[in-house]
Amino acid sequence: MRFLHTADWHIGKKLQGYDLIEDQRHVLSSILNIAKEEKVEAIVIAGDLYDRSVPAVDAVALYNELIVDWNLKERIPIFAISGNHDSSTRLSAGTPWFSYSNYFLRTQLAEAFEPVEFNNIQFFFLPYFEPIAARLYFEDDSIRTIQQAVAKVIDKMEELFDSGKKHVLISHFFVMGSVKSDSETKIEVGGLDSIPGELLAPFDYVALGHLHNQAALRQDNARYSGSPLKFSLSEINQKKGVWIVDLATDLELNFREIEPLHDIEEITASFKELLDPAFYQSINRENYIHIYLTDRTIIPNMMNQLRQIYPRILGIERANGRAEQTKRKRKVLEMKDPQKLAEAFFSEMTEEQLTANQEKWLGETLQEIMEME
Amino acid sequence: MRFLHTADWHIGKKLQGYDLIEDQRHVLSSILNIAKEEKVEAIVIAGDLYDRSVPAVDAVALYNELIVDWNLKERIPIFAISGNHDSSTRLSAGTPWFSYSNYFLRTQLAEAFEPVEFNNIQFFFLPYFEPIAARLYFEDDSIRTIQQAVAKVIDKMEELFDSGKKHVLISHFFVMGSVKSDSETKIEVGGLDSIPGELLAPFDYVALGHLHNQAALRQDNARYSGSPLKFSLSEINQKKGVWIVDLATDLELNFREIEPLHDIEEITASFKELLDPAFYQSINRENYIHIYLTDRTIIPNMMNQLRQIYPRILGIERANGRAEQTKRKRKVLEMKDPQKLAEAFFSEMTEEQLTANQEKWLGETLQEIMEME
Repeated sequence: MRFLHTADWHIGKKLQGYDLIEDQRHVLSSILNIAKEEKVEAIVIAGDLYDRSVPAVDAVALYNELIVDWNLKERIPIFAISGNHDSSTRLSAGTPWFSYSNYFLRTQLAEAFEPVEFNNIQFFFLPYFEPIAARLYFEDDSIRTIQQAVAKVIDKMEELFDSGKKHVLISHFFVMGSVKSDSETKIEVGGLDSIPGELLAPFDYVALGHLHNQAALRQDNARYSGSPLKFSLSEINQKKGVWIVDLATDLELNFREIEPLHDIEEITASFKELLDPAFYQSINRENYIHIYLTDRTIIPNMMNQLRQIYPRILGIERANGRAEQTKRKRKVLEMKDPQKLAEAFFSEMTEEQLTANQEKWLGETLQEIMEME
Repeated sequence: MRFLHTADWHIGKKLQGYDLIEDQRHVLSSILNIAKEEKVEAIVIAGDLYDRSVPAVDAVALYNELIVDWNLKERIPIFAISGNHDSSTRLSAGTPWFSYSNYFLRTQLAEAFEPVEFNNIQFFFLPYFEPIAARLYFEDDSIRTIQQAVAKVIDKMEELFDSGKKHVLISHFFVMGSVKSDSETKIEVGGLDSIPGELLAPFDYVALGHLHNQAALRQDNARYSGSPLKFSLSEINQKKGVWIVDLATDLELNFREIEPLHDIEEITASFKELLDPAFYQSINRENYIHIYLTDRTIIPNMMNQLRQIYPRILGIERANGRAEQTKRKRKVLEMKDPQKLAEAFFSEMTEEQLTANQEKWLGETLQEIMEME
């Protein structure tokens, strides 16, 4: 069997304030074209369909439209799960009806144990979940981490394995050893949200979502598809596309790249060059552009003048201050741990450090917050 | 054919801050029981399934659960439309799949012309829409009011009439001559949002939603089902329930009342009486209670003391100030026209009146706002 593996669409996402909906419409229609060219028998979407638990109306409209087109008009089976950016409850509306036409959208942990058999493959769906969902499902208070939970989930899946069939897992997690890029906004506490790659060994293929870089993991039987679109400057050099997975005999993987409507580009130039037609006609001005400005002087009304030529400017940095700024940026990134952020905020406001008790309370509260939907 | 007609569920609505979700779960399960007792062949829901365009997660969960139960488990056909409180786009997610099991949920004006034929009846679905949707659909800029739009819609429906069948319209509008109660929050400008009852003449039955009082309209071939639950003090004396509609021969209508989990009640008493077990044991303290207090003195910590006995107090008024307060309340209600409200706010803030231009601009802006989703 041959299927297409994609994930992390984040429909409705904005890039530095720019609405990406047309860029997303473009790449999603490319995915359909690839699916048809490659004559796949199904499309697998490994979570984060939407960027937010309550997506905007135009995001909902785009998803509704395309899924009707793919599944009802083109009659392509769709196997999808919710990711950490999706609201599992909101996304679950109507799902019991979808299976009439081989559109399986799974959003609840309990559904992980209802594999779908299709062309000699058992597909297992493991939507994103928090440890508390596993504690409730297994009635086991000892489950504290995603790692423990996933181990238990996969054990239970193995009991359902039909040995005459191949086994595919569709899942949305951070697998240990993978490299994170910049646009996965879900905050993490201490690495407990990651799972060791060995846990995935029982499967012939694991279609992962969560990380936006398709190269983030190279494990024999597991891949991230990555996002089909660049969502941050840090992804500027990443290949974007989808996997064509062939399980007819041995696992065969083929990455199909997708051209974006507008790419992300970095430009280093002086203000004078940037305004020079000879310069800007040589580049694609419609791209999302990050500018490193080589000037050292103050330029009045700079942004407005540049925006008239470059309609999608992501940001402007002084090239000579670049090393400095990159360092600052890295520091901000390191601070993404919410506990550290809150502590830094506290000491900046009060010029005091948290007491041991306050620190404990903060940690527990953050844990609770992250376990809530 | 025999079907049940309900509307205006407003799942997720709050009553003076009290969460009604358990009250709603209760009446909705009563509706299913009535449907089974009456052996109806379908359930018609005439709009306002939810109270808000973005309902809370527990509201979505309740609707998901019950509709799976009614349609997939009990196998009851469901014919539903969106109302003015629903987001047509959000609600439309998945609708193309629902018809596999005779669950028709229509949210777009264009779908008004795709009748569903069922047991010798043509069901027409007219979800709530704004005049701008009709202007776009008919490509006719002369359509300014709902009245004009609905006339055009019904003309077009009549062209689709199969003369060998009966015709039912499911719709969500204010029909002229009906009496409004207090909990339909949709604001109105100058009565242009209402349609004359004669327009509905072509149909054997019109299942209406929008007004919460089932007695709001008594037209031979048209009824509001009303909300299945009281949503405001002004509905205190209204009968709540659903219509059983029989079109086997002539139209036969039977209103089935539904007991709420907690009723709304008014009590006139002194503070001393209210705290007296002999008094409060004689009434259902679990009800939503509005208190008219006969005392004239100041009572410290009154609300807290009363809440310990009456957990669902909607409000407390001094009985001796009652005439006064009712008058004030009526004045507030009259002010519900947003233009008048904005004008009053302006003159209160600036002690000036709007100029003719400002007034015009305000009117146009309000019109635009109301036409947006």
